[in-house]
Amino acid sequence: MDNKDFIKDFPILNSELNGKKLVYLDSAATTQKPMQVINAIEEYYKNYNANPHRGAYELSILATKVYEDAREKVKNFIDAESSEEIIFTKNATEGFNLLGYSYGMSFIQEGDEIVISIAEHHSNLLPWQRVAKAKGAILKYMYTDENGELSLEEIESKITDKTKIVSITHVSNAIGTINPVKTIIDYAHSKNAVVIVDGAQSVPHMKVSVRELDADFLVFSGHKLLAPMGIGVVYGKRNLLEIMEPYTLGGDMVEYVYEQEYTYDDIPCKFEAGTQNVEGAVGLAAAMDYLNDVGMEVIEEIEGNLVSYALERLNAIPYVKLFGPSDVKKRTGVISFEIEGVHPHDVASALDTYGVSIRAGNHCAQPFMRYMGISATCRASFYFYNTKEDIDILIEAIKETYNMFSKWRD
Amino acid sequence: MDNKDFIKDFPILNSELNGKKLVYLDSAATTQKPMQVINAIEEYYKNYNANPHRGAYELSILATKVYEDAREKVKNFIDAESSEEIIFTKNATEGFNLLGYSYGMSFIQEGDEIVISIAEHHSNLLPWQRVAKAKGAILKYMYTDENGELSLEEIESKITDKTKIVSITHVSNAIGTINPVKTIIDYAHSKNAVVIVDGAQSVPHMKVSVRELDADFLVFSGHKLLAPMGIGVVYGKRNLLEIMEPYTLGGDMVEYVYEQEYTYDDIPCKFEAGTQNVEGAVGLAAAMDYLNDVGMEVIEEIEGNLVSYALERLNAIPYVKLFGPSDVKKRTGVISFEIEGVHPHDVASALDTYGVSIRAGNHCAQPFMRYMGISATCRASFYFYNTKEDIDILIEAIKETYNMFSKWRD
Repeated sequence: MDNKDFIKDFPILNSELNGKKLVYLDSAATTQKPMQVINAIEEYYKNYNANPHRGAYELSILATKVYEDAREKVKNFIDAESSEEIIFTKNATEGFNLLGYSYGMSFIQEGDEIVISIAEHHSNLLPWQRVAKAKGAILKYMYTDENGELSLEEIESKITDKTKIVSITHVSNAIGTINPVKTIIDYAHSKNAVVIVDGAQSVPHMKVSVRELDADFLVFSGHKLLAPMGIGVVYGKRNLLEIMEPYTLGGDMVEYVYEQEYTYDDIPCKFEAGTQNVEGAVGLAAAMDYLNDVGMEVIEEIEGNLVSYALERLNAIPYVKLFGPSDVKKRTGVISFEIEGVHPHDVASALDTYGVSIRAGNHCAQPFMRYMGISATCRASFYFYNTKEDIDILIEAIKETYNMFSKWRD
Repeated sequence: MDNKDFIKDFPILNSELNGKKLVYLDSAATTQKPMQVINAIEEYYKNYNANPHRGAYELSILATKVYEDAREKVKNFIDAESSEEIIFTKNATEGFNLLGYSYGMSFIQEGDEIVISIAEHHSNLLPWQRVAKAKGAILKYMYTDENGELSLEEIESKITDKTKIVSITHVSNAIGTINPVKTIIDYAHSKNAVVIVDGAQSVPHMKVSVRELDADFLVFSGHKLLAPMGIGVVYGKRNLLEIMEPYTLGGDMVEYVYEQEYTYDDIPCKFEAGTQNVEGAVGLAAAMDYLNDVGMEVIEEIEGNLVSYALERLNAIPYVKLFGPSDVKKRTGVISFEIEGVHPHDVASALDTYGVSIRAGNHCAQPFMRYMGISATCRASFYFYNTKEDIDILIEAIKETYNMFSKWRD
């Protein structure tokens, strides 16, 4: 339950910072890496490093193999039909920009509607502003209740026959609410819209099957699920990827190049120009191996228990205000809160002196924060390597922080 | 001279593949990594890993510091004026696409001319096809002689008052010719054109100063200079970067975000959306430290000696045809050649059985190969960690390959 067994795999979680045990509660921003991933990187550079796809020699063939094996592993991890539906990117943000260009700029026309929720991360918002502006389309928002939840009424009133794209986060990175993506996908499909799911905060934390969801696209990053930085994924249904224009142009994505024109390669290569991050793909595969070994159901259970315990303890403190659903089934381990009378940035800095790393700010979701009437929150986010002890230290640090600021005010 | 001292730092160069010593002659595709770089990655994940820029806690502040220190190191490495002129990308290809969008799409108008050379890599060619097509501009080519050299006459006849962008490779990745970029830059500036330099094959091999060249932009990748995959650089003059639109949109590059509009941050942040590859930046910094410790002048001298020796030995074989300049001062360690009667792909496969890794193909430069009247070449490319012994093994393997294929033909 408390997962001391996992912690031994994560060197940074066994380290101290300024004489304090590191209590890392910012996994929604980026996760820490187990030795299995760090070792996979080292092994790659010591044994297989070469530029894949282009070489007739064994080292390059090996590099190609580990790269394509990683693609296969991603395919299985999200239950896609074919590994050709897996495109590697540098991060989730590039994924949304790719879809904005390669799908949005080609298939959105004047007067069309693009529907997103008010709770989107900037990366799933700004690319759609760009498409809407360039094409004379309309960017429409589905608004949530005060817990960040979308009602069926709101979904059905905003997604209409004019809707061509719905792009929706699976889990709010700001307050942890789980969206009813299956309901949204089914309803959007009844209106012939394609649906993009932002899986950045869901794929690391729960079993996500693109086939069960019937998602048209799924975007996520590797560094939020134990993998190295610099690697992300776009899943797309084959029939959609095939009709899309490439986004990044360069080597390795072409068939023929002439002085004034070119023809491009098949999927997934046409979306992967230039030397790809093989190391990142190898690290992502090692990360998925690790998660599979633990089991995504086990991770969900561990995190559910951590969230229940954290909410219970935070709820017991009168000067703490919590955001997001209280029902653990409707939320993940992203816990946003305020401490009465103390600015979130001051809270984060104060907690840091107790070794507790949390985030403070608008969480790259300014329109959502404005809509909720708040300028910033404190955000503690959990992963399966966190423990009840971490939460106890967080609670103690919050209490001491409040007392310290109260004294200053007196 | 033969640099056995360096080899000990590169684990893969001390390894065997199928019982043969690895003779790695494909550094123009990607370089091998010294332990100093591999260790820097490990140290990062074990000690400093966090999402930079956004955190008020110490770990995030440390991650921000190592990331920004890396930017400063890159600035010094290419002699830029300010670290704010350094933008991290995922590879050189992304860099050209960024410039195509952020500079090309904003400042190229109908009838304007974009001038590149016929010897460009696809990554510095396709983005300009896209811009020219979108804007009704003209993509013009400077043609080379049979050694890949550009004459002053050709440069002055193609770059005119209509030219708005000149994008030129510093060194040909296909045949190793060094272009007179300083001459091109000065002439283009006299016509008020901006000049982009593709430094992918020069920055790893010689001292490149953007201030001495007066280059407006310089693009290169990290993995071709000992750094990890997944990190590249765009240098741009401050006054140009400041007037450009951002390319990738998302978190961390904005100031304010509203439902239908946004304002963006200053340089360099406005070009770095989403979670950046801090690991890659840290690895790039370690790679540049390594290169600085060796000394770029020493690297140039070592490679010059290797190239002289390789050309001498290859020239002595009657059935080997060499491409590119014979003058060592006009070329780098990218040596393209043909073996009479044996297809380049067969050469590469055959050499592989001797442990020798070379590339065969069009080297992502199809228009150049077509212009030269060849469909493919063999390419052996050197770095300072190669030795005369590597060249001796290459020569022996070429001879045995030729003899084997000759026997089959008899």
